[in-house]
Amino acid sequence: MKKSYSHRLSANSQLTQKSVNRCFNGEQHYYSHQSTATKTPMTFSIYLPDEALTGQRCPAILYLSGLTCNADNVTHKAHFQQRCSELGMIFIAPDTSPRSVPASDEAETIEVPNDERYFVGQGAGYYVDATEAPWADNFNMESYIVEELYDLLRSEFPIDTIGITGHSMGGHGALLLGFKFPSKFVSVSALSPVCAASESAWGQAAYTEYFGDDKSLWAQADASKMIEKVGRQYASILVDQGAADNFLAEGQLQTSTLQDACEKAKQPLTLRYQGGHDHSYYFIQTVINDHIDHHWRMAQLR
Amino acid sequence: MKKSYSHRLSANSQLTQKSVNRCFNGEQHYYSHQSTATKTPMTFSIYLPDEALTGQRCPAILYLSGLTCNADNVTHKAHFQQRCSELGMIFIAPDTSPRSVPASDEAETIEVPNDERYFVGQGAGYYVDATEAPWADNFNMESYIVEELYDLLRSEFPIDTIGITGHSMGGHGALLLGFKFPSKFVSVSALSPVCAASESAWGQAAYTEYFGDDKSLWAQADASKMIEKVGRQYASILVDQGAADNFLAEGQLQTSTLQDACEKAKQPLTLRYQGGHDHSYYFIQTVINDHIDHHWRMAQLR
Repeated sequence: MKKSYSHRLSANSQLTQKSVNRCFNGEQHYYSHQSTATKTPMTFSIYLPDEALTGQRCPAILYLSGLTCNADNVTHKAHFQQRCSELGMIFIAPDTSPRSVPASDEAETIEVPNDERYFVGQGAGYYVDATEAPWADNFNMESYIVEELYDLLRSEFPIDTIGITGHSMGGHGALLLGFKFPSKFVSVSALSPVCAASESAWGQAAYTEYFGDDKSLWAQADASKMIEKVGRQYASILVDQGAADNFLAEGQLQTSTLQDACEKAKQPLTLRYQGGHDHSYYFIQTVINDHIDHHWRMAQLR
Repeated sequence: MKKSYSHRLSANSQLTQKSVNRCFNGEQHYYSHQSTATKTPMTFSIYLPDEALTGQRCPAILYLSGLTCNADNVTHKAHFQQRCSELGMIFIAPDTSPRSVPASDEAETIEVPNDERYFVGQGAGYYVDATEAPWADNFNMESYIVEELYDLLRSEFPIDTIGITGHSMGGHGALLLGFKFPSKFVSVSALSPVCAASESAWGQAAYTEYFGDDKSLWAQADASKMIEKVGRQYASILVDQGAADNFLAEGQLQTSTLQDACEKAKQPLTLRYQGGHDHSYYFIQTVINDHIDHHWRMAQLR
């Protein structure tokens, strides 16, 4: 009998499968699990091409989403499935923060602290480990991504190498974690990233809450400062930025700061300003295939 | 000076532009307008490739959505923009029915009749003109699509030929209107269509409301019966159906009835059952490029 296309979780898996939909030559899956890093249930989506469904190890992309998003936005709107199916690439989209969970028959309500501003609190974890109350208990997205989820993914799915990318706040996360933990990733790219969180109004508001006044912690959570500090780590990184992006004009993204940091670090950077494009998922879908190709090539070259 | 990429509405346009986002080599637009057919405001999305934005006439696809959907679902989740950008094809997505509109400072609340069942009422116009109260006042989606919107699109955008397609209830609409008004369309295709609305539980519930007991009206609003009646109209039509679609198993879709009707009508039909695929937008995105290609080829051959 030939192999069938299906994925089997480990015997004592911590994962609960929420949905499976066939999509191109592969399947779009959703899972949830109880996180020790955030002390909440966390949900992620994962696209598994048929190569992975038959047990073959595949290169993977970890995609970090932007402010207010969860795994759904990119999974529905970024249009990554076709290219990942064609290449045989796994694509993983975690949530952006811990979240409050309403009580069900089986469980108590989980209350996670929040903020009425969209760039702080739930939906805005910044992929850092908060040190200040009330955030430090749950807002440990750095540990969640690079330790807990990273290990869980490796143990439950046939993943070969992992590249990291993301959009906006998630672009910040991809650059920050990619350069802080270069042994974990073979490639880095970013779409419309917040390049210098400690110098943007969004990031300053968030870091005041998560780190208080300790500016050394702010600096360690700033992607451009991290790149300058650790120097070249990758053969090349790819960054796309919409040239008509309002948030670029507002100074939230600081793309030129990233450019300077890469120059000082001698980190080769392909930086593309896309004429007419804004900050939306219409922009993301326009360039996502180039990012998938970038990570695919880097996985072959490792 | 070279041409710039932008679209200008006519001097006394009935359309109000709601949004513009650059997407691949083109723009995703949304418009609303006051409809005479439905007596409500109606919203549609339209993707305009750069060819259209510079005034060049382009072939267009009119995509009719399924139950519970509006223009957003397909515009966000079907992933049609890339291929339409590559080919230079316009893609139009209307709403599925009239809808109640809450009062604003400038206007009164518009109350459209509804039904608590998702397959009757708002979100379920079936692309027919209702004859029974309370529906007949507003639920005139056939007239809306093939007369009002059709003419409005032709007068406001550089459209060459128009092909018609759709998903589920919208697949029914595409087959029904494509064969009832063959002079208006150059090509027809459908994804997971309701092939024989008068024989499906969804369609029977809707038609009881919209047409009462007059079964001759039911027959005139049944895609397979329409094809049998009018005979071959197109060189070929394309239909994709997920083989693991629950609604197929439940008897809502009646794909074999369409097959029989096309055979009797000598209407060439390419019918593809896609293994493992369900009724979702993950299925739609998997086959949408083939449908765009089908309509593109038919537009070249006309």
